Amino acid sequence: MAAERSQKRNGSPRIGILIGSKTDLPFFKGATQILERFEVPYELQIGSAHRTPEVVGRYAMTAQERGLQAIIVGAGGAAHLAGAVASHTTLPVLAVPLATSPLQGFDALLATVQMPAGIPVATLAVGKVGATNAAILAVEILALGDPRLRRELDKYRDSQKERIAEHNRELRESNQDRG
Amino acid sequence: MAAERSQKRNGSPRIGILIGSKTDLPFFKGATQILERFEVPYELQIGSAHRTPEVVGRYAMTAQERGLQAIIVGAGGAAHLAGAVASHTTLPVLAVPLATSPLQGFDALLATVQMPAGIPVATLAVGKVGATNAAILAVEILALGDPRLRRELDKYRDSQKERIAEHNRELRESNQDRG
Amino acid sequence: MAAERSQKRNGSPRIGILIGSKTDLPFFKGATQILERFEVPYELQIGSAHRTPEVVGRYAMTAQERGLQAIIVGAGGAAHLAGAVASHTTLPVLAVPLATSPLQGFDALLATVQMPAGIPVATLAVGKVGATNAAILAVEILALGDPRLRRELDKYRDSQKERIAEHNRELRESNQDRG
Amino acid sequence: MAAERSQKRNGSPRIGILIGSKTDLPFFKGATQILERFEVPYELQIGSAHRTPEVVGRYAMTAQERGLQAIIVGAGGAAHLAGAVASHTTLPVLAVPLATSPLQGFDALLATVQMPAGIPVATLAVGKVGATNAAILAVEILALGDPRLRRELDKYRDSQKERIAEHNRELRESNQDRG
Amino acid sequence: MAAERSQKRNGSPRIGILIGSKTDLPFFKGATQILERFEVPYELQIGSAHRTPEVVGRYAMTAQERGLQAIIVGAGGAAHLAGAVASHTTLPVLAVPLATSPLQGFDALLATVQMPAGIPVATLAVGKVGATNAAILAVEILALGDPRLRRELDKYRDSQKERIAEHNRELRESNQDRG
Amino acid sequence: MAAERSQKRNGSPRIGILIGSKTDLPFFKGATQILERFEVPYELQIGSAHRTPEVVGRYAMTAQERGLQAIIVGAGGAAHLAGAVASHTTLPVLAVPLATSPLQGFDALLATVQMPAGIPVATLAVGKVGATNAAILAVEILALGDPRLRRELDKYRDSQKERIAEHNRELRESNQDRG
Amino acid sequence: MAAERSQKRNGSPRIGILIGSKTDLPFFKGATQILERFEVPYELQIGSAHRTPEVVGRYAMTAQERGLQAIIVGAGGAAHLAGAVASHTTLPVLAVPLATSPLQGFDALLATVQMPAGIPVATLAVGKVGATNAAILAVEILALGDPRLRRELDKYRDSQKERIAEHNRELRESNQDRG
Amino acid sequence: MAAERSQKRNGSPRIGILIGSKTDLPFFKGATQILERFEVPYELQIGSAHRTPEVVGRYAMTAQERGLQAIIVGAGGAAHLAGAVASHTTLPVLAVPLATSPLQGFDALLATVQMPAGIPVATLAVGKVGATNAAILAVEILALGDPRLRRELDKYRDSQKERIAEHNRELRESNQDRG
Repeated sequence: MAAERSQKRNGSPRIGILIGSKTDLPFFKGATQILERFEVPYELQIGSAHRTPEVVGRYAMTAQERGLQAIIVGAGGAAHLAGAVASHTTLPVLAVPLATSPLQGFDALLATVQMPAGIPVATLAVGKVGATNAAILAVEILALGDPRLRRELDKYRDSQKERIAEHNRELRESNQDRG
Repeated sequence: MAAERSQKRNGSPRIGILIGSKTDLPFFKGATQILERFEVPYELQIGSAHRTPEVVGRYAMTAQERGLQAIIVGAGGAAHLAGAVASHTTLPVLAVPLATSPLQGFDALLATVQMPAGIPVATLAVGKVGATNAAILAVEILALGDPRLRRELDKYRDSQKERIAEHNRELRESNQDRG
Repeated sequence: MAAERSQKRNGSPRIGILIGSKTDLPFFKGATQILERFEVPYELQIGSAHRTPEVVGRYAMTAQERGLQAIIVGAGGAAHLAGAVASHTTLPVLAVPLATSPLQGFDALLATVQMPAGIPVATLAVGKVGATNAAILAVEILALGDPRLRRELDKYRDSQKERIAEHNRELRESNQDRG
Repeated sequence: MAAERSQKRNGSPRIGILIGSKTDLPFFKGATQILERFEVPYELQIGSAHRTPEVVGRYAMTAQERGLQAIIVGAGGAAHLAGAVASHTTLPVLAVPLATSPLQGFDALLATVQMPAGIPVATLAVGKVGATNAAILAVEILALGDPRLRRELDKYRDSQKERIAEHNRELRESNQDRG
Repeated sequence: MAAERSQKRNGSPRIGILIGSKTDLPFFKGATQILERFEVPYELQIGSAHRTPEVVGRYAMTAQERGLQAIIVGAGGAAHLAGAVASHTTLPVLAVPLATSPLQGFDALLATVQMPAGIPVATLAVGKVGATNAAILAVEILALGDPRLRRELDKYRDSQKERIAEHNRELRESNQDRG
Repeated sequence: MAAERSQKRNGSPRIGILIGSKTDLPFFKGATQILERFEVPYELQIGSAHRTPEVVGRYAMTAQERGLQAIIVGAGGAAHLAGAVASHTTLPVLAVPLATSPLQGFDALLATVQMPAGIPVATLAVGKVGATNAAILAVEILALGDPRLRRELDKYRDSQKERIAEHNRELRESNQDRG
Repeated sequence: MAAERSQKRNGSPRIGILIGSKTDLPFFKGATQILERFEVPYELQIGSAHRTPEVVGRYAMTAQERGLQAIIVGAGGAAHLAGAVASHTTLPVLAVPLATSPLQGFDALLATVQMPAGIPVATLAVGKVGATNAAILAVEILALGDPRLRRELDKYRDSQKERIAEHNRELRESNQDRG
Repeated sequence: MAAERSQKRNGSPRIGILIGSKTDLPFFKGATQILERFEVPYELQIGSAHRTPEVVGRYAMTAQERGLQAIIVGAGGAAHLAGAVASHTTLPVLAVPLATSPLQGFDALLATVQMPAGIPVATLAVGKVGATNAAILAVEILALGDPRLRRELDKYRDSQKERIAEHNRELRESNQDRG
């Protein structure tokens, strides 16, 4: 985890990542790579909506004054963690439902996205893909006040296009080899 | 709502009913009728896991010292209310998922029942049926320390059997009339 | 629709609302009320990912230079509109799945939230509730650079708490009347 | 299985665990560990709602006189076992749907939780997590008449909080090592 | 209900229809019409797997000696009635899941069809269509020992074909009228 | 139904529409309007995969020699009609799942789309929308050999774009009126 | 496969098993064991509703005259095989949905069970369990005209009860060993 | 990949295959085998509705003038690729939903099939089976203007029938060996 290192280089965390359990950590590898690529300092912490509600509440309530600008939350099952955070802050909360139960993420998705009027939670795709996208969405939000990030996002988009172009070249070459 | 009246007659509330929104009230009519039939004093309150988390937290944390012995919770959508209560008390929490969104209760059911290890929520059926059964389950729990309630539960079971017998008699008679 | 009026009072639109069909308009009444309450200028337009892809592409590609800071998108069925917008901008895209087919919104929810890595779409609840929350989330995002909005969000949260307290008072009074 | 041993130390069983098949046994390891941790004597038995209905009926009908105070039931597929038990006793029945069919527990969940009005079944999460929580819920119910258990539940909650705090310390240390 | 009348004309009941609740009766109108058309004497009764388990058990256990050759069962929600009957008889049990809860019959379907190995329940479609088909399936089973019923089934099939041919004629005529 | 009239004007039918039941007719009004707009002669018939399998088989087997170039099929429930047609012809079969059961079209969708390797069925959206799109897809297929239809399809696309532009103009005007 | 051998010993097949693909064979091992245990002669054949509709039609149409008394059908995906058989015979058709696609049997279940009025298919559980139960149900049907089979079914039920009793003894012994 | 080779032998591509990601390639092996068997020249390319929308748009817009007659599209998750292609061409678009997320293809299926009125996408089964069938459907469409292909399709159907007959022979022989 390069959180500490990033913080030193880039200042205090602007994005908080809160996950419901230590076992959810591997889902967020791509997410932290994104934040490091964009040089967005972040912090990562474990908290449970149900087992440590006070910790989660305090985390959310102090998030803004600690300088966070968005909070990424990942949880599985009856995934309440994002909602619990959102109920204690008006910072944008970006949520990643995780497929950690026999019900394969349908539970986490519905428990995350169907928030009542007044307390939004921005929900991303189930699992690793969603975690990566939560980090990108966080950068998109920060980019509203940070032209460097907007430029970096454009470059990142270009790199995605280039990667697909590269795959197409590989595909053509493998055809010619065999043709 | 006869809560106040029951309280006067039967002493202070032993069961708390907490619903997520004023519009959830009609789902709990059968539940309060059950508690009144069994002369179990109860209180009924509105609280939102997301809009009033502190109120919900305080409600749950003080529930035991206020004399409550079980808490019935009803909520729809990303139904976190029961989990939020359960995270602040070790009293039994009995939950009723409500079908209040376009997803017809599948969201509330999964958001309620799939709680993580350590913080149980006893989930009943979606909607009115579940609300009624939450009240009966509450009485079943109280009956462990209250022989009157156990006897009343047996009588209630008998009345259910008798009602079906009555329906069968009606069915036979309507056949003979037409036969 | 008070978009024009708001624009005059508050300057050029900061939030774009794009809906897939004229018939989706009623779902967004609460959303526009939120933006007006917070005095956030917005624009509302109809566009179809499939019937007018060029219009949608142009809309998304020019959104940033036209001053938009987030785009709220609503669509039902195989709801691709939010993804189509997101593929042409790095502004935050906030999506509302609508239950407009016999499959009751499950189709729109999955078609909206399950975006591939690289192109995030922040998904809110299915239907009106999600539309309202998309507007609030947009305000939360704008509030990162606008302390007035942060204060207004806090007030809005307080008003939600007060409304539930009011409902509880009504509940108690109706009990006393009948008691 | 330490049921016999516990019984010797702690007196006759207060909790019955009934599972639908020998193959369901592994799901309940965490559940029996909970009961042993709380020194709650229990008994564990196999019974099938469909293959041995008389045994199940007798088990349920005699449960109260044998001193049981709650019955934990686990079953998969068209999981009727909990309902069958509940139909023969007014003791609290706590049910664990198991994901033992190709339909991954959706069948067991719906067959367990959607009980008709009058016969409640307290449903926990699908699988091992739910089994563990059924045991904790049973302890919560017993704690209504047993202050020692209430104190132990509070300690257990504290240990859960402490475990998450420990995981956070590990997370920070692993960052510093790599930082 | 013409059960009594049929019985008089055709001898003692060969088919039992057991429904979980008086409110399930309208779903079975088409089913009883089928049995009357085929002059198969039947009986119709209400019984609840959960509220009157002894009645249901006795009904199933005595079904064969009372001359029943198949039992049609209809129930909604956590639909255990067919399974409860099947557990007490080796007569064919034909089950109709009913859509009587907010979950629209998915609960009843899964609770009915996913029976464990050893105790089969023949499941038909959800609702009225399934009830009608349960009656036809019952006739198909009886026809194995009753050539008259086999001939009547063939006629019934022919009448279905003729009805569709009739609809096609109507369709052509309405086109010519307008043409 | 203008099938006959179209046939006279435009020659013999090129598209067959086969529906499972007379009651499915209203779902196909938009579909026939499309075919008439594009002046594609069609025929419409009722046939049941289960009640008139021979008729359906003959219809499919003779479709090509009768001059049909694609067959549109609509059915609900365990929707086998399209598959039954496809098993007897190598003409393109375009299928519309209908939401005619309590399971709201999920049954018809899965029964239609999940065809085994070797016998494709081109599945469109559930209900009226899918029926309309089946007709358009049929025109797209015919247009491969008919430049007039290709031009008409382009015009139709333009009319869709224009209609959305019109809706946007209405939206702006209604704002100015109120502004 | 002991079909041939059984036939020799017991006369011509009374039960037909028809599966949609060679790869479905392993699901039916328990089913053929049941038929052999009960000494019910059967035949097993592969047929595809879509690839060999004529073979399936002929199989079904000649089933009765060939002496079959029930047909067990297994298929996955858009499982039409049972319906195709049922459309050509009035013999009881017992169907087993198989989980052979990524949709895990939900497709096969709905495509099998939701048959239209007039053409019943008796649906059993998804997969091996359902295949075994289809065989038992077939025996239950044959037993209506064969007292030996009724007695054997009673014995089979007893053996199931005994097996669970045996498992309970093992459970108790393993506890005492460890106690 | 034999695309290049086929093109040389058979002329320029008539079918385009567009997949959302390099990792989707293995799903389409059966599809390209079908096209090669029928000697239909095709091209295969990677394109992302979200990462390379311009490339996809250009691909679709130029498809007809480049000689393509149908486009096969495969994508998983919020599978928009087929819809994006369809929005830029009036060629038939044949889509294959892929099960590449934790939600097992339900997301891709609904995101693909539920297209709005006006822009049809012909959806095939989830995964490899659907990819193979998309290729066959493409051949069926081309066969409308190519009698050789129609004859080849008939032969292909015959080969499928023969393969099942072969499996039945194997089945019988393995029985005789063991008998």
